[in-house]
Amino acid sequence: MKCLILAAGQGSRLSRKGDSKPLIPLLGIPLIERAIRSAMQADIAEFYIVSGYNGEQVRPFLDGLATRCGITVIHIINDDYKLDNGVSVLKAKEYLSEPFLLLMADHLFDPGILRDLMKQSPDRIAVTLAIDTHMANELVDMDDVTRVRHENGKLVAIGKGLADFNGFDTGIFLCTPSLFEALEHSATDQGDTTLSGGVRRLAGEGRVNVLDIDGRFWLDVDDPRALNQGERALLNQLRDKPNDGPVSGYLNRPISVRISRILCRFPITPNQISLLSFSGSLLAAALFAMGGYPALAAGGVLAQFASIIDGCDGEVARIKFLESDYGRWFDAVLDRYADAFLLFGLTWHAIAGGPDSLVLFAGFLAIIGSFMLSYTADKYDHLMRRRFVSGKGWRMGRDVRVFLIFLGALLNQPLAILVLIAVLMNAETIRRVWVSRDRG
Amino acid sequence: MKCLILAAGQGSRLSRKGDSKPLIPLLGIPLIERAIRSAMQADIAEFYIVSGYNGEQVRPFLDGLATRCGITVIHIINDDYKLDNGVSVLKAKEYLSEPFLLLMADHLFDPGILRDLMKQSPDRIAVTLAIDTHMANELVDMDDVTRVRHENGKLVAIGKGLADFNGFDTGIFLCTPSLFEALEHSATDQGDTTLSGGVRRLAGEGRVNVLDIDGRFWLDVDDPRALNQGERALLNQLRDKPNDGPVSGYLNRPISVRISRILCRFPITPNQISLLSFSGSLLAAALFAMGGYPALAAGGVLAQFASIIDGCDGEVARIKFLESDYGRWFDAVLDRYADAFLLFGLTWHAIAGGPDSLVLFAGFLAIIGSFMLSYTADKYDHLMRRRFVSGKGWRMGRDVRVFLIFLGALLNQPLAILVLIAVLMNAETIRRVWVSRDRG
Repeated sequence: MKCLILAAGQGSRLSRKGDSKPLIPLLGIPLIERAIRSAMQADIAEFYIVSGYNGEQVRPFLDGLATRCGITVIHIINDDYKLDNGVSVLKAKEYLSEPFLLLMADHLFDPGILRDLMKQSPDRIAVTLAIDTHMANELVDMDDVTRVRHENGKLVAIGKGLADFNGFDTGIFLCTPSLFEALEHSATDQGDTTLSGGVRRLAGEGRVNVLDIDGRFWLDVDDPRALNQGERALLNQLRDKPNDGPVSGYLNRPISVRISRILCRFPITPNQISLLSFSGSLLAAALFAMGGYPALAAGGVLAQFASIIDGCDGEVARIKFLESDYGRWFDAVLDRYADAFLLFGLTWHAIAGGPDSLVLFAGFLAIIGSFMLSYTADKYDHLMRRRFVSGKGWRMGRDVRVFLIFLGALLNQPLAILVLIAVLMNAETIRRVWVSRDRG
Repeated sequence: MKCLILAAGQGSRLSRKGDSKPLIPLLGIPLIERAIRSAMQADIAEFYIVSGYNGEQVRPFLDGLATRCGITVIHIINDDYKLDNGVSVLKAKEYLSEPFLLLMADHLFDPGILRDLMKQSPDRIAVTLAIDTHMANELVDMDDVTRVRHENGKLVAIGKGLADFNGFDTGIFLCTPSLFEALEHSATDQGDTTLSGGVRRLAGEGRVNVLDIDGRFWLDVDDPRALNQGERALLNQLRDKPNDGPVSGYLNRPISVRISRILCRFPITPNQISLLSFSGSLLAAALFAMGGYPALAAGGVLAQFASIIDGCDGEVARIKFLESDYGRWFDAVLDRYADAFLLFGLTWHAIAGGPDSLVLFAGFLAIIGSFMLSYTADKYDHLMRRRFVSGKGWRMGRDVRVFLIFLGALLNQPLAILVLIAVLMNAETIRRVWVSRDRG
């Protein structure tokens, strides 16, 4: 499906003089790129973009983006960008003769909204408008939002000043070319050149449906406050990862998200962040091996810090649309090496006093147990999902492992912690083998 | 699709007096169970089985099998089992009113033949016969096989005594109920009560197609020699596993297949074989750790032997239709533990003279490298398949690793072999990370 994006406006409340609003970065990605990439996640690949104010900056950027992402970008130029936004839509009339999506360049949104919207069949409906019925949504700017009233799935009224309303216009539309006609009539008959004017006219004919976004995320980034809200909302979304272990959820993630917010601004790739975290773990292992309590404690702190940074690669990847299978794999491989080196460093530290069989054996079992836990995890999850639908339970992952190492180092108990990790990790591995056993 | 299986005959050339031919085991599985399970692999779940001679033994066995496998078995009793096989087919007339597959209880076959056969649309064709056109097939008993002559995809002649022939009847048919009529006419008009008689009649009307099995495996198990051939053919099929490494392919597999042939006869499960191999590795590791060259060498031999036995679990699973995801996973988990213990045993052995940093570090790197190789393998294969279609190359797997340990122990070079394994395994891991890298 084709997608029309309005990016002509001046956006004076957000952009400083001379800036181009669609190009203002949010967490390192320009607003319009974020809109396009979010739409790409809903399998949109053909974009018609109306540029105007500072278009000579916007258009080359979009051409570069099209090449990088393998999408089609058609430029529609609107020199009347100081007029209402209905004028921008009308400029696209000759390009769009079939149903299309309509988005605003400065709106953030969950791609799921587009997927839902595209499932609607227009029939004799001219426009389907995605609306937010969560009236207490604190991300909505009550002074600026376009309000709507709907009854039985139909749009009844729309406007900024609406007193009696039960929803908000999210700026996300599924349109048919009938919209162009309605905009023209609205302009000539009522002198109303806003998009809302055209939609209002169609609504009067009973030809506008609404679709509730069902609490999904959207945000109109209209001023610095909204930009800040948007950053925080996106960062918060990173925090509910279902696979996070307890240490990750309560300690690492809240910190790593703050670090990611800063990292996003720099041209550092997720894989480089993985390498950075890995280097920290290696250094921590070397500190362990040096011997002496100060080095041990410093190594423990560094290991825990590296474990926190280890969350940033995935976070930055999600924020900047850089997720990849290879990235996940690369991170996992480095994590296994990091774990092994940390435990080996601890073993080396503990063995320094003289060769002790117990230390050696505990270190060996801790290393192999940690490995086995990662090695068995995927398959175990797979088998478990199949067998016990609700069988999720507590995950003993890398976050717990490194945290135990951190505690052991701080408390100057390298041997005790090796024994503990050896027992916990191997016991959990054996439990998995046992629980998922079959008669094969 | 329903499947009719003829299992009424006496099979006097194979069964000893009083034995029931369909129940004669081949590699631990009765012939008729093998036929049924092979058909199940082609997604057949409803079986009509004509029993006769010693039916009171065959039928309870099949009822038990139906329960174990979750399939439907309908018994058709033919007390005239001394008559020709067309009589057995006719007993099924009232049960089968739609196209059905017809198999012989004592034939081995590749399930792919059934899949191909079921893709044929009967149209006005009454019977499609799967034929083998590989005239030099040494598994065919020229004195006993039913010969066929075909032209342009049509069966022209069929019979044991046929002098001018260009194919063999595999005993695998896709039939329509028209066959029953043809059998009745053949019996009353010509007094021919064989299945071939009925098929010959339909062939005369141009209503029998042939389908070349394209070199796929089939075998009529009619006498002790064929039973032996069948065992060897199935065992040979185990030997071309595409994922086998060089040591596995040239050394381990040829031996393990011979051991599997014996293991099949006993009620030992694949998972028990995995445990047996694992125990061998543990014992070998303990021998390494004991110290002294004799124990080291004995451990090396035992480790290599355990590695050979490690191939038997999968082989027995394939032969006895016991393959499972869990079994593969269980084997992989035990293999990782076995590898780690073997290398730790070697490290312990090498360290016995006194604590040596090099030994400790080499042992650690060997263990982690071996692990990483297994850990990265699946994902690597996946990425590689996607990126370089032909990028297969040489696999450095467990077979090579254990063989190196075996050689190192025999040559009394534990440290050298640890260093070698550490270098090889980690270098290969790093190579994989490098080759499959992307810009993510």
